[in-house]
Amino acid sequence: MPKRVDHQERRETIARALWRVVDQRGILRLSLREVAAEADMSHGQIQHYFASRQELLSFAMDFAAEQTGQRVARGLQALGAAPHPRDVLRLILIEMLPLHDDARATSRMNAAYVLEALHDNMIRDRAREGLRQGREQVRVLIAQAIADGKIARDRDANTETDRILALTGLTPLLDLEVIKPGDALAAIDQHLDELFTS
Amino acid sequence: MPKRVDHQERRETIARALWRVVDQRGILRLSLREVAAEADMSHGQIQHYFASRQELLSFAMDFAAEQTGQRVARGLQALGAAPHPRDVLRLILIEMLPLHDDARATSRMNAAYVLEALHDNMIRDRAREGLRQGREQVRVLIAQAIADGKIARDRDANTETDRILALTGLTPLLDLEVIKPGDALAAIDQHLDELFTS
Repeated sequence: MPKRVDHQERRETIARALWRVVDQRGILRLSLREVAAEADMSHGQIQHYFASRQELLSFAMDFAAEQTGQRVARGLQALGAAPHPRDVLRLILIEMLPLHDDARATSRMNAAYVLEALHDNMIRDRAREGLRQGREQVRVLIAQAIADGKIARDRDANTETDRILALTGLTPLLDLEVIKPGDALAAIDQHLDELFTS
Repeated sequence: MPKRVDHQERRETIARALWRVVDQRGILRLSLREVAAEADMSHGQIQHYFASRQELLSFAMDFAAEQTGQRVARGLQALGAAPHPRDVLRLILIEMLPLHDDARATSRMNAAYVLEALHDNMIRDRAREGLRQGREQVRVLIAQAIADGKIARDRDANTETDRILALTGLTPLLDLEVIKPGDALAAIDQHLDELFTS
């Protein structure tokens, strides 16, 4: 089905153009006109692929989440069979923080998307569902590590999951260069050390 | 000097209008035109108080930081003389998270400001300086608690400071209602318990 592949490719091209606009010029400059110019397409061509700005934003965000998922999957492969949950959590956190170019782009896209979600019910529902699913994956991993005795049994899986996800709060410190990547890694490692040894 | 007071009052009125635009309609709708309409003023009147959009954004952010500072100061007064550093950190974190209306408005303003900072050098310098100062206040408090033996002496003040500030990463989970305020407080309390008892 070459037509469908082209359609998907074109949508990804547009999504990447949207990322570049957000990444280079900021969310305030985000309009279909700017994205069209960046993708070297007309406004009408973009509308052929996305009926609305929300639809484009949601696709770009799903695509960003997919890219992050693929980076995590590649990292997991490198960890080999039955990786330690500590290493899995470290990998997930590193890919969620703006520590390299691809992660920086998806991290900024994500921050912009959450702000938009506060004012758009459709985007809000999708963003919430995505975050819920991501949180649930981490929770299952932590609950299993507690059951396996790798994390102390008196730990609460929900609270520890929220604390892990909260480490994405290092993002503004990194983006504004108040701390260095090594500082963020030190905070992550200290946190994981305590979680897995207590 | 009634004139100067009027000027400052007018600037605060405009800043609050800007918050409302960001809070109710989102950062994407933020323009001087929208802010002028919300403040019931003309574009020209706004320009009399702020020469540029950046100047208005920076003022609104400084004003938000000031408001947060005042809420923390009021909370500190309620804690009495020589409050325990654990209570001080808890208070700061609660006022930084979107757990009540005022804190929600400043939290969203802050997220929008950080995104803008990535694409505007003037805003970036001011945002970075503000974050640096806030981080330094927390670091001094933690370093003192380590020196006083309230936090274990083998803890690193910089790493523990970054971990405390990282707890603002609970913001998207709260904003998208993936977790409840009580869950965020549980994560904060668990973190502070470990920091102060180990």
